Amino acid sequence: MPEPALRSGLLTRLPPPVGIRQHRGTAHPDDQAQAPVTGELSIVGLGPGGPAHRTQAARDAVRDAQIVLGYHAYLAACADLTGPHQDLVPSEIGAEQQRAEDAVRAATDGSRVALVSSGDAGIYGMASLALTTVAALPLARRPSVRVVPGITAATAAAALLGAPLARDFACLTLSDLLAPWEAVEARLRAVAAADLVLALYNPRSRGRPWQLRRARDVLAEYRPDDTPVGLVTDAGRDSERVQLTTLAELDPDRAGMHTVVIVGGEGTSRLGDWLVTARSLHAPR
Amino acid sequence: MPEPALRSGLLTRLPPPVGIRQHRGTAHPDDQAQAPVTGELSIVGLGPGGPAHRTQAARDAVRDAQIVLGYHAYLAACADLTGPHQDLVPSEIGAEQQRAEDAVRAATDGSRVALVSSGDAGIYGMASLALTTVAALPLARRPSVRVVPGITAATAAAALLGAPLARDFACLTLSDLLAPWEAVEARLRAVAAADLVLALYNPRSRGRPWQLRRARDVLAEYRPDDTPVGLVTDAGRDSERVQLTTLAELDPDRAGMHTVVIVGGEGTSRLGDWLVTARSLHAPR
Repeated sequence: MPEPALRSGLLTRLPPPVGIRQHRGTAHPDDQAQAPVTGELSIVGLGPGGPAHRTQAARDAVRDAQIVLGYHAYLAACADLTGPHQDLVPSEIGAEQQRAEDAVRAATDGSRVALVSSGDAGIYGMASLALTTVAALPLARRPSVRVVPGITAATAAAALLGAPLARDFACLTLSDLLAPWEAVEARLRAVAAADLVLALYNPRSRGRPWQLRRARDVLAEYRPDDTPVGLVTDAGRDSERVQLTTLAELDPDRAGMHTVVIVGGEGTSRLGDWLVTARSLHAPR
Repeated sequence: MPEPALRSGLLTRLPPPVGIRQHRGTAHPDDQAQAPVTGELSIVGLGPGGPAHRTQAARDAVRDAQIVLGYHAYLAACADLTGPHQDLVPSEIGAEQQRAEDAVRAATDGSRVALVSSGDAGIYGMASLALTTVAALPLARRPSVRVVPGITAATAAAALLGAPLARDFACLTLSDLLAPWEAVEARLRAVAAADLVLALYNPRSRGRPWQLRRARDVLAEYRPDDTPVGLVTDAGRDSERVQLTTLAELDPDRAGMHTVVIVGGEGTSRLGDWLVTARSLHAPR
């Protein structure tokens, strides 16, 4: 039985380049022709909004970068950390592949690069694309890469609602841009039947107006009408909004692109203004 | 149709007391007899380890508290923030209910209190117990309460592994202290069948030696032998360890109380040293 791969060290230490194990020993023309890459790519989660819920590692990664890339609203969200000595490269929604390639190329060229996302870059964020892009490079062209975790939207929303994610939950995206709706709905049904609390990302946008209504109807086949539901929009920003309702009364028009919808399970109660899920499955219901 | 409850403001603002909506208008003897409570309870997630992955809001909440309560290892984890001007109240694992009551009582008595957890206090943490304890008090005895989110173990582990949680995942605890094992296993089966990536909390301890092995065998009924698995122990601490393996070769003895086990789905690939889940369900497999 092969020994599992093992790394040790601090979370803040740069991990070895992506793919070094898999690609070790394979010959590639570029391996001989060029000096090893010295650039560094940090894929950074900025958390939900302003500086309060940003980590020190995220702050330091943005401050120390020579080049910062991201969707323009995310660059604005860390404008307190950047300055004229840095190259800022804003881009649009939909340009994720190009943004990942630009970030990797800049690091490959030897720069310290920060690729920023809101929330956690590893959850419906840029980390998957950026790591895949790096792994496609020959070994000698790969920069050091690290992922800096951030407070993800589900956690930020849950904290404002109370403690709805206290025991066993799932995060699902309702976006069908990258998935057939049938696959999304199958996952919704499985999670509802298993009585997991649900955090729904990307519940609604102008281009996707009907998915949340459909999801509500699917969930209502499994859960009672009075199941507590919380909608949190723009967590951590000035425009932050927290709405409490029930599954039967969930109005999809109240959700937008920056809303997370949390749907309780059997163990979730509304205690005044809070949604709280019991830690125990033994508890009386 | 009743208007859903609505709150607005910054995440850092103290929300209204728990239960104010539910209990408004109900008479209670204490409501007349005593002055309103001025204490504040912050339920704080410290993140996975040292200061690097702690948020500014968590740091400020601990620094500003007059009394800090927590499991003794979590008090040690924020010792850089506390000082002799504060009352530190350490307690043992298993004393969660007492700790919640002590924290709420201190806030009810008028103090600024921080109740600290590692990771996120709302995910398998103290927030559920503390909020339930506050909600049981008569309205006039309730302190202000807020939950300060933290980087949870699943996110911290995922960042070290690459981007395994990039699309649709579930967090389950394998602890059967607060649940019958049959319920845990039913959830495992549902999540495995739905092809969600899994983050397993509390996979193993001295008192619970067999659950991870059993979970592995259950998951192997649904997923191929070569499904990528990552084990992250002590994320963000000096003793941090990252191990990569497969479902068939997962050795439960390698996990401990501070390990998170991430089990990939169909879209998860091993790219060198990283586990990466594709953002798209359309991608070729």
